[in-house]
Amino acid sequence: MKYVYFFGRGKADGTAERRDLLGGKGAGLAEMTRIGLPVPAGFTITTEACDYYFKHHHKYPKQLGGEVSKHLARLENLTRKRLGDSTDPLLVSVRSGSARSMPGMMETILNLGLNEKSVEGLARATRNDRFAWDAYRRFVQMYSTVVIGLAKEELEARLRDMKMRYGVKDDTEVAAKGWRELVGEYKGYFKQKTGRDFPQDPVEQLWGAIGAVFESWMGEKAVTYRRVEKITGLLGTAVNVVQMVFGNTGQDSGTGVCFTRDPSTGEKTFFGDFLLNAQGEDVVAGIRTPMHLGELETKMPKVYQQLERVRAKLERHYRDMQDMEFTVEAGKLYMLQTRTGKRSPAAAFRIAVDMVDERLITVEEAIERIKPEDIERLFYPVLDPKLARSELASRKLAEGINAVPGAAVGKAVFTAHDAEEWASRGEKVILVRRETSPEDVGGMFVAQGILTATGGKTSHAAVVARGWGKCCIVGVESLTIEADVKKMSVNGRAVKEGEWITLDGGDGSVYTGQIELVRPEPPQAYRTLLKWADKKRKLGVRTNADTPRDARVAREMGAEGIGLCRTEHMFFKDFEHPEKSVERQEAIQEMILADTSQARERALDKLLPFQRRDFIGIFEAMDGLPVTIRLIDPPLHEFVPHDPAKQAELAAKMGVPTEAVERRVEQLREANPMLGHRGCRLSITYPEILEMQVRAIIEAAIDCQKRGVKVLPEIMHPLTLDKKELEILDQATRRVAGEVISRSKVKLNYLVGTMIELPRAALMAREIAQVAEFFSFGTNDLTQTTMGLSRDDAGRFLPVYVDQSKAGIFKEDPFQTLDTEGVGMLIEWAIENGRASRPNLKIGICGEHGGDAESVKFCHRVGMNYVSASPFRVPISRLAAAQAVIEEHKHASRK
Amino acid sequence: MKYVYFFGRGKADGTAERRDLLGGKGAGLAEMTRIGLPVPAGFTITTEACDYYFKHHHKYPKQLGGEVSKHLARLENLTRKRLGDSTDPLLVSVRSGSARSMPGMMETILNLGLNEKSVEGLARATRNDRFAWDAYRRFVQMYSTVVIGLAKEELEARLRDMKMRYGVKDDTEVAAKGWRELVGEYKGYFKQKTGRDFPQDPVEQLWGAIGAVFESWMGEKAVTYRRVEKITGLLGTAVNVVQMVFGNTGQDSGTGVCFTRDPSTGEKTFFGDFLLNAQGEDVVAGIRTPMHLGELETKMPKVYQQLERVRAKLERHYRDMQDMEFTVEAGKLYMLQTRTGKRSPAAAFRIAVDMVDERLITVEEAIERIKPEDIERLFYPVLDPKLARSELASRKLAEGINAVPGAAVGKAVFTAHDAEEWASRGEKVILVRRETSPEDVGGMFVAQGILTATGGKTSHAAVVARGWGKCCIVGVESLTIEADVKKMSVNGRAVKEGEWITLDGGDGSVYTGQIELVRPEPPQAYRTLLKWADKKRKLGVRTNADTPRDARVAREMGAEGIGLCRTEHMFFKDFEHPEKSVERQEAIQEMILADTSQARERALDKLLPFQRRDFIGIFEAMDGLPVTIRLIDPPLHEFVPHDPAKQAELAAKMGVPTEAVERRVEQLREANPMLGHRGCRLSITYPEILEMQVRAIIEAAIDCQKRGVKVLPEIMHPLTLDKKELEILDQATRRVAGEVISRSKVKLNYLVGTMIELPRAALMAREIAQVAEFFSFGTNDLTQTTMGLSRDDAGRFLPVYVDQSKAGIFKEDPFQTLDTEGVGMLIEWAIENGRASRPNLKIGICGEHGGDAESVKFCHRVGMNYVSASPFRVPISRLAAAQAVIEEHKHASRK
Repeated sequence: MKYVYFFGRGKADGTAERRDLLGGKGAGLAEMTRIGLPVPAGFTITTEACDYYFKHHHKYPKQLGGEVSKHLARLENLTRKRLGDSTDPLLVSVRSGSARSMPGMMETILNLGLNEKSVEGLARATRNDRFAWDAYRRFVQMYSTVVIGLAKEELEARLRDMKMRYGVKDDTEVAAKGWRELVGEYKGYFKQKTGRDFPQDPVEQLWGAIGAVFESWMGEKAVTYRRVEKITGLLGTAVNVVQMVFGNTGQDSGTGVCFTRDPSTGEKTFFGDFLLNAQGEDVVAGIRTPMHLGELETKMPKVYQQLERVRAKLERHYRDMQDMEFTVEAGKLYMLQTRTGKRSPAAAFRIAVDMVDERLITVEEAIERIKPEDIERLFYPVLDPKLARSELASRKLAEGINAVPGAAVGKAVFTAHDAEEWASRGEKVILVRRETSPEDVGGMFVAQGILTATGGKTSHAAVVARGWGKCCIVGVESLTIEADVKKMSVNGRAVKEGEWITLDGGDGSVYTGQIELVRPEPPQAYRTLLKWADKKRKLGVRTNADTPRDARVAREMGAEGIGLCRTEHMFFKDFEHPEKSVERQEAIQEMILADTSQARERALDKLLPFQRRDFIGIFEAMDGLPVTIRLIDPPLHEFVPHDPAKQAELAAKMGVPTEAVERRVEQLREANPMLGHRGCRLSITYPEILEMQVRAIIEAAIDCQKRGVKVLPEIMHPLTLDKKELEILDQATRRVAGEVISRSKVKLNYLVGTMIELPRAALMAREIAQVAEFFSFGTNDLTQTTMGLSRDDAGRFLPVYVDQSKAGIFKEDPFQTLDTEGVGMLIEWAIENGRASRPNLKIGICGEHGGDAESVKFCHRVGMNYVSASPFRVPISRLAAAQAVIEEHKHASRK
Repeated sequence: MKYVYFFGRGKADGTAERRDLLGGKGAGLAEMTRIGLPVPAGFTITTEACDYYFKHHHKYPKQLGGEVSKHLARLENLTRKRLGDSTDPLLVSVRSGSARSMPGMMETILNLGLNEKSVEGLARATRNDRFAWDAYRRFVQMYSTVVIGLAKEELEARLRDMKMRYGVKDDTEVAAKGWRELVGEYKGYFKQKTGRDFPQDPVEQLWGAIGAVFESWMGEKAVTYRRVEKITGLLGTAVNVVQMVFGNTGQDSGTGVCFTRDPSTGEKTFFGDFLLNAQGEDVVAGIRTPMHLGELETKMPKVYQQLERVRAKLERHYRDMQDMEFTVEAGKLYMLQTRTGKRSPAAAFRIAVDMVDERLITVEEAIERIKPEDIERLFYPVLDPKLARSELASRKLAEGINAVPGAAVGKAVFTAHDAEEWASRGEKVILVRRETSPEDVGGMFVAQGILTATGGKTSHAAVVARGWGKCCIVGVESLTIEADVKKMSVNGRAVKEGEWITLDGGDGSVYTGQIELVRPEPPQAYRTLLKWADKKRKLGVRTNADTPRDARVAREMGAEGIGLCRTEHMFFKDFEHPEKSVERQEAIQEMILADTSQARERALDKLLPFQRRDFIGIFEAMDGLPVTIRLIDPPLHEFVPHDPAKQAELAAKMGVPTEAVERRVEQLREANPMLGHRGCRLSITYPEILEMQVRAIIEAAIDCQKRGVKVLPEIMHPLTLDKKELEILDQATRRVAGEVISRSKVKLNYLVGTMIELPRAALMAREIAQVAEFFSFGTNDLTQTTMGLSRDDAGRFLPVYVDQSKAGIFKEDPFQTLDTEGVGMLIEWAIENGRASRPNLKIGICGEHGGDAESVKFCHRVGMNYVSASPFRVPISRLAAAQAVIEEHKHASRK
């Protein structure tokens, strides 16, 4: 076991590949050294040492002491300087660095090696008293706070006092004497607080710093950051002990940060900031305004040219855009860090496509480099990034869960009905509800954004909004909503109906007033890259769309058909002619209130023309592509009004006593509606509903077919659990369809299939496939039933299950990323057994997971024919499907 | 294909084994003929002919005509008589007879072959004019109503008129002249209604009768009977055409029904009724009081001795108690039917055990002959069977679903609180509720019986009541309950608090007033037979018991431990000291209202001593046997009061504002509580609940152990779905248990395991078994989640799914009998994979299915270690487990 890796003078023990062991910084320093870049020498203590440290009650591995001594000696030989030397001392920086970037979350100590003796040596060697004492006081300050844990404020106060004493404002104006006095005061404070003198032995200093860096790995900040960023599986932080170079030794020195390409546009220009006569921490602190690289070219042309060469070499070497830190000490360039640069979504596409053009990377690599979030973030409107932070802070009302990213501006309304009314007058509205239900869909549809006080990322509001790519914030717990008086408030700050609010779905912030939004146009590189992805992928990508409008959007997004067209929203909302919605609502409610199948049929007869028109619109939008239509799914309870006023209104319209409506609504109430009278159970008990829907679908298809629109309808029965059940449904479907087709004398092909969304359906797949022509996995409900988890209720405990710092039972929210272990086992079983009895069985997925990249890859691996995603997630699925193929090839070639 | 089977003069085409083809009656006649009993000759048209008839639009198979002619001729030859003959005509009866007894559900025609000519022949041959014309008018009447469908009332009216005319009261007083006139009137009515003469051709008559019998198979009565009795898989009815013998030819004739043993006690005495000078239908009609067989011995000693020989022969031959019909015609005995006799539960045991003693059957056969219902019915108190029907009818208030059999008498009360108050005064009460919830458990416990207006056989009321073997009627839809004014009513008939009512859980009837009940003592034969079963079975049988009292009862019933001790009822009810219940309720509600884990712990500290005492009681009752204790399972919502008054009361007690209680109750509300924050999810989010419960269990166990009570506690976590989840629970459990044990210095062994009640848990069994020491399948929830069926809500559609005359998707209600296809697949998978990673994994089942015979057999087949059933179902499980072994042996030897 080797715990320490050396680098210096063109040679290094480590390489770029050993990130996990050396951390990003350590691996970068080693690699840059190897390829001949100017890097100060040093050594890296591995993450394994850190891991050992925490597994052994904060003790170092035995041999670590020896290894550090050995490599410190090597560093001293190489630099021909010695730590603590009184003539020209070696100084080192001690920096953290883990395999994943955790900016600012862990500790750093600079200028280590200074003491009463060596500070004089530094002064002599640099011929700069002021510089030496400034460096010393920085070190004492850093060491006292970071290693010992003294209060930073106390030290800052002494610095302020000293400057007051000398009547200076800026640190740069302080002379050597001031710094020297300050060091004395710091050391006095140190002694007072710790009872001992400030350590003068550089080796003692070094071990103090190493321990502090290790400890910072488990510091609250770092732990929280890893939890939030879902960083797991790391051993710990490495510690980089590197010879100090100084950017603050005069006007021929400085320090900078640069990117090999523009990280916000992706343009191939050299991009960065430089601060003259400054140390790294000054750049971070943002006290002085840095200069652009162009200015550097003018000021230090030789350094700039050298940096340009480094830029070219590093990009060629790493084959990706790099983010570098450098320091210039007395005209000499030192590279201190390089890493793959973070970039905007637009830049990610541009850089990937450009690098293919430049033959730097392959098409496969370009596809692999795009993350699903890059696509997602590309399409959402966002708050204008030019807005001042202080402005935003003052307007911030509350914060909730960022269910659907993007931003939205509108006037607050508190009922779906109001939303529609205001919207019909041309107003932009934000619908604010405690929670939403299917009754609210019309209002949700016309709203710019949706805000709910309850619910999580998979609540009704979130799921519906995500389908539309509509900004949505849920679970704003501080929000009190008084829908009856049309008002909401947070800690006494009230917003009334009609007042403007702005939602930032990116971070879940709610603002008062109108904040300007910008919606990015996808760049050309996006289109190029997705075309490449389409060529690669084997999985079809369809969309979940319930309206002609959604269907058109999805088609633009690249959907190759509809995998799930839910028919129930149509019962509430006429998406093309909103003014006619009320007729539909009345008809469906009349149907539910009916006591006999005759009365039900009468009501259904009224719905038939509406449904037919909806289907015609969808078929037209999807001309030439398959459209899977799911018959009615939700429990009837969701269609009837729940508040007494609306019940009375409905009763009056229907000409029945209010009590009759109340009673029926009460009868429909279920203890567990999710497991109740819904899905195809409705068609089994009320076959007339199935008959109306099948008639509407087939009549619409024939109407389109006659006009030359190519229609491929696939009729899908939800919540099936048995072959015999599906047989009954299948026979009824084919009987009605057959009648309509034979009357029309038009040839029409259609499929009849089923959702697989209950464990029993998956288990009985072999039998069910004897009837079904296709399977579509409804992974939302399949997850709910397999795990016994109601997504409406999971909010109270699922966060604890997913949070790695708490129970950490699941790696991901199973409603966002498919539980491939448990639910996935059922899916694999169902595919294998379904195909065993029907080899050409068409298999897809239409749950929310169809738009989740990891889940899409699983769907590819288990051999599905297609995935179906909400329109704005279609490009994500296209990309993920291509990535799955690439991963598969890699996996195969590794074997 | 042969459609007609002949029997007569010692020979028969059929045998007893061909029941399916010949029906029970036809097979019995054939078999009795073969073994030399006196049976009138005849032939049987098979059930296959009936099947053909209905599959071919009510057409007979082509060759049937020929076969019937041939066998009719054979019958005529054998009897030396001819149908329609004018001197000594052959008369036949035409009777239905399917493979399963369907008493009175299908049609029969007697005296067929009579016409104007042959009636004279019959008169001559019998020298009895009156008898012949009586026979003819009976035939005309039967044929007109049954075959032609004329109104019975019209014919009856003419009979009444005729008797009035002759001034006679009784049929026996009517002379030949009267019958002759009546026949004339019948025939006139026939002509008037049908436009044609009454058929004179005996062959036409015969085909009319055959068709009528076939048609009666699909008659409404028969279809309903089969649906209610769940009779499926039959081809149809056979038709038996048999030479008529007459019990009504004089004082040396008669007809009777007898059993080879007493069908109500099982005693080995000859048991039956005989009616002198009567035809079979007269016995059924119950117009005259029959004589006992003893009287027959006096009146016709030779016939009686012959019958005794038949009795011995038939029992030896069939090796079971027989139910026979016979007729004596002019001193000559004819056997008309034999079949296995129906018997009371007590008789079933006595006969089985006696027959083993008599070496007539083997122990295995004795075990196989007992049906689960025999045991169930043995233990429930019942309405005194001596009560007059008319008395019962006048007292009947309503009818509901017979959720738990048995009967109960008590004063009506309308809240659980009232039930406890009245009971504490020594009153017997029936708790009447719209529906019950865990809050009502205390009241349910003290009640004699439970009556609810809603719910099905698996509603809360039904499940809890079944566990206690307590009479329960649910789903009485006609019942209006006004709990606020303490009153219920049915169609305006009201019952107020304190008024006596009687429930008959056997048929779901609710009566007003006190009706006397009798509770049968299980006979000695029951104990003998179950001992035999215990020797045979391999499966352990435990019980589901939550109280010491239940535990004691279950032990008497033969339970070998507790498979499921639910701890949540203990939070509501102090079963040993009811007056202390309120303290528990307050503590649990305080725990739920708590805002911090400290406050929760304080409340839990109050509950600890109660739980500990409960466990001590249970451990004592189960001294030496294992006790599986399930930690808290239901959502917390079930523990808090829902009506505003109770909430205010609770708030006052807790010293918090009512709004705080309301808010917390509202927060706890879940969309799908079944899939919500319950089971071990409570222990994951509130570890202090787990800690309290484990402490109570282990402290109780140690207390018992110290006093020499042998304790084998098994701590069970509910609703687990992942290995890591169980690891967290397991570690917490062992930590607390370890602390308590090591402090006590007593050696105590305990197991920690899990329920498998979610599909995911079954799927991940291999991983979960790495942690769990035992699995217990919670098949109630596993069925709910695998099938996506909420048993609270399934009432609206599950009946359609189970009803074979409707959708008929399931053979049985999956909540009563395990769905071995779907849910069973998961169970088999989990057992196989669980044992793969832990070979000695202990596996049981603790859902309701553990007390269902078919499900118990499945549990045996898949290799479980034990089943656990509610106390009164323990004997059923013992029996079923033994039957499973016997079936397995048979199956193996067949192979």
